Amino acid sequence: MATAPSVSYSITVRLEVPASGTAVGQLTNAVEASGGSVTGLDVTASGHEKLRIDVTVAATSTAHADQIVSKLRDIEGVAIGKVSDRTFLMHLGGKIEMASKHPIRNRDDLSMVYTPGVARVCMAIAENPDDARRLTIKRNSVAVVTDGSAVLGLGNIGPKAALPVMEGKAALFKRFAGIDAWPLCLDTQDTDAIVEIVKAIAPGFAGINLEDISAPRCFEIEARLREALDIPVFHDDQHGTAIVVLAALTNALRVVGKKIEDLRVVMSGAGAAGTAILKLLIAAGVKHAVVADIHGVVHSGRTDLVDADPESPLRWIADNTNPEDITGTLKQAVVGADVFIGVSAPNVLDGADVAAMADGAIVFALANPDPEVDPAIARETAAVVATGRSDFPNQINNVLVFPGVFRGLLDAQSRTVNTEMMLAAARALAEVVADDEINANYIIPSVFNDKVAGAVAGAVRDAAKAQGVTAPDAVATAVQ
Amino acid sequence: MATAPSVSYSITVRLEVPASGTAVGQLTNAVEASGGSVTGLDVTASGHEKLRIDVTVAATSTAHADQIVSKLRDIEGVAIGKVSDRTFLMHLGGKIEMASKHPIRNRDDLSMVYTPGVARVCMAIAENPDDARRLTIKRNSVAVVTDGSAVLGLGNIGPKAALPVMEGKAALFKRFAGIDAWPLCLDTQDTDAIVEIVKAIAPGFAGINLEDISAPRCFEIEARLREALDIPVFHDDQHGTAIVVLAALTNALRVVGKKIEDLRVVMSGAGAAGTAILKLLIAAGVKHAVVADIHGVVHSGRTDLVDADPESPLRWIADNTNPEDITGTLKQAVVGADVFIGVSAPNVLDGADVAAMADGAIVFALANPDPEVDPAIARETAAVVATGRSDFPNQINNVLVFPGVFRGLLDAQSRTVNTEMMLAAARALAEVVADDEINANYIIPSVFNDKVAGAVAGAVRDAAKAQGVTAPDAVATAVQ
Repeated sequence: MATAPSVSYSITVRLEVPASGTAVGQLTNAVEASGGSVTGLDVTASGHEKLRIDVTVAATSTAHADQIVSKLRDIEGVAIGKVSDRTFLMHLGGKIEMASKHPIRNRDDLSMVYTPGVARVCMAIAENPDDARRLTIKRNSVAVVTDGSAVLGLGNIGPKAALPVMEGKAALFKRFAGIDAWPLCLDTQDTDAIVEIVKAIAPGFAGINLEDISAPRCFEIEARLREALDIPVFHDDQHGTAIVVLAALTNALRVVGKKIEDLRVVMSGAGAAGTAILKLLIAAGVKHAVVADIHGVVHSGRTDLVDADPESPLRWIADNTNPEDITGTLKQAVVGADVFIGVSAPNVLDGADVAAMADGAIVFALANPDPEVDPAIARETAAVVATGRSDFPNQINNVLVFPGVFRGLLDAQSRTVNTEMMLAAARALAEVVADDEINANYIIPSVFNDKVAGAVAGAVRDAAKAQGVTAPDAVATAVQ
Repeated sequence: MATAPSVSYSITVRLEVPASGTAVGQLTNAVEASGGSVTGLDVTASGHEKLRIDVTVAATSTAHADQIVSKLRDIEGVAIGKVSDRTFLMHLGGKIEMASKHPIRNRDDLSMVYTPGVARVCMAIAENPDDARRLTIKRNSVAVVTDGSAVLGLGNIGPKAALPVMEGKAALFKRFAGIDAWPLCLDTQDTDAIVEIVKAIAPGFAGINLEDISAPRCFEIEARLREALDIPVFHDDQHGTAIVVLAALTNALRVVGKKIEDLRVVMSGAGAAGTAILKLLIAAGVKHAVVADIHGVVHSGRTDLVDADPESPLRWIADNTNPEDITGTLKQAVVGADVFIGVSAPNVLDGADVAAMADGAIVFALANPDPEVDPAIARETAAVVATGRSDFPNQINNVLVFPGVFRGLLDAQSRTVNTEMMLAAARALAEVVADDEINANYIIPSVFNDKVAGAVAGAVRDAAKAQGVTAPDAVATAVQ
């Protein structure tokens, strides 16, 4: 797959060029001849002799950006000034901030926001701790917690290097659901320690979003926190992904006219996301699933499973999939399958593998940035293809899910999050695509579709309330 | 001391009154006859028969506010509607929020703020972790950490009830120093656990403000964290108070014309604030201090000290004060003293005690809301009197200190905070009061004096840089 120039590798180059002659005209040519794309050209100063020009260029990589700058430098008469990376500029000093809701202009303001007035609010909460959901930021705040062990596709890069992702996540929480999230990047990867830390910081938050924590620790951490806390704990890499996949699959079935209980599903990848997807698909009605990992198809007789811990995630997969106990490779398993879902590694399948699937095949190749199979090739024989990439149709993107899920949980003051709520979220997300809109290239709405977050939030809120797992309505003790 | 009606006990009462007759005129009378004060009266709807009026009233307490409402109800023809407590209204839903610095309008924005663009920023930090101070919120963010064990004067009210104070603190950090602080209210009061938690959350912050943690745990927690972390850890109840007190004392000495090394200082209170004040005064040159606690004057032969842990704070006080080894009560100790500093309990001294102090006596009676001695009575014989209250001259208020101290630490990228920096902060704060401004009723500037935070910040930044305890200037690996 050729990669197109992207704004995420976008630079602004400040140049000086002679006012006369052909240099200006050569700038765009030089960029385009190098495979870049000029997205902006501003003359920022002009004299009789010289022009100062800021050229903004989209490239395909950092190395490519460097090549383009060197081609610009080769033009006769051009002097290169500062080269700014637009993405880095956006991150300078961080992408989020804390803001006060009330101005503090004078002593009267101070006496209400802080001492002495605040003491009465504290006492009201001390008498009735549930009032914290009414009289503090708790009601609307979510901790975005990571240990930096599995950040994006970058691996174990640690807590500081994870912070830009967590800030971005916080920004998305606000943009799409009005939630106040704050990143907590932990300087430990010890399961017990993480559990104790998150339990301890919970009083100030109404929800915990676990993020980019590697498997299998993420399973235990989430399970223990859910048991211990009276606020919902949601590992987005698992469940956010699972909900979008189920929504997309629901709509793909509308396109191909199959029923979920009849499907033969083959998955590649048995990590955090794969396991969560599998569990949610089974809860939604999938009866026949086969999972393959790096060692091939998971079956109960596989040597690495015979003695596995009965609580291990892979053991769970062996016990709950592959009813015919097939063995062999992923490529063998996909023959005749209705659905392929990849959350694993690039290029594990080719066009012939997809062609060997059943009629009306559905292929979700979600490895990023390079999918399990080239989507353009898959589309030659499959009926519906989706990826995690923004430059193909049908992008499977967690941003469609986590803001709305948490909005619904917070609005319901839910004490937990469970499979019923996740199924409701997936249903609501699928239904955003109307019958007169749906087709093979539009099974999932855009992240900027403004119906999404509200639909997901409403479904989750209603499911939480219907299950009676919400906090009692807080009552203030003070006059109000 | 009579307490005046305060905006921090302010209510808005919605009333309906007959459009004709004397009821409207009686509203203000009724409030003032009850000892309240009308601070606003708005007709919010008017008809031929009825007026709807919102009356805002300052009271002295919640009970007083209730009495005023009942007096209004007694007026012929008046119907009472909703009664709103202005302070509670300001706290509804919390006082702070998270805000994104950049709009996320379209896919280009998303690709720079979040994936895929964010990955390059993460990798830059993974290669050079110091870049986190340049490319993330870390550079400007402070964690406000409490366990809710000693909140204001309210005691051990727990983490949820402490949250309104911590939110207020965060709002003040932004208002006075542009710092992004987020509250972390911990659901544990175990020293080891708190140390581990704060160590773990440190990567995302450039400073830790410990708040309202009870003594003696606060000493150990702070000491261990300072040892472990490469960012400054500052327990504001200790050092914020100590810095303001030293600044105020410095200026009181300008008024009375005494030198710090000649002073006889008597302190009431050996808790967190008292100990920190004492240590800073000694560092600033005080040679003769005596401390009294609830058991009387601290001396090395006191029965509760003979077998005390040699590391205990009280042992430190016994070893470093009271060179003449005097014994007895606080009242005996203040006879002939130059300075009294109270950080203890209401009304431990009376007018006769203050009159028995040396000429040019300085009295800082900081217990809140009721000082160690009535400041009006103390002022009859003392040369300079200060309190923690906003309704007397010379308010000793930490808000004068912590925003500027952290601003300076963050600007210097300081890895620690130490006595030199605190002395510099106190000096800078004292110098905000010019020679032509200073007098017995103006030894300390207002919290709204806009020179304060900058002066304190500059002094702390310079002290940190002079000591070479700052992080290396972060260098980005990417083009920029």
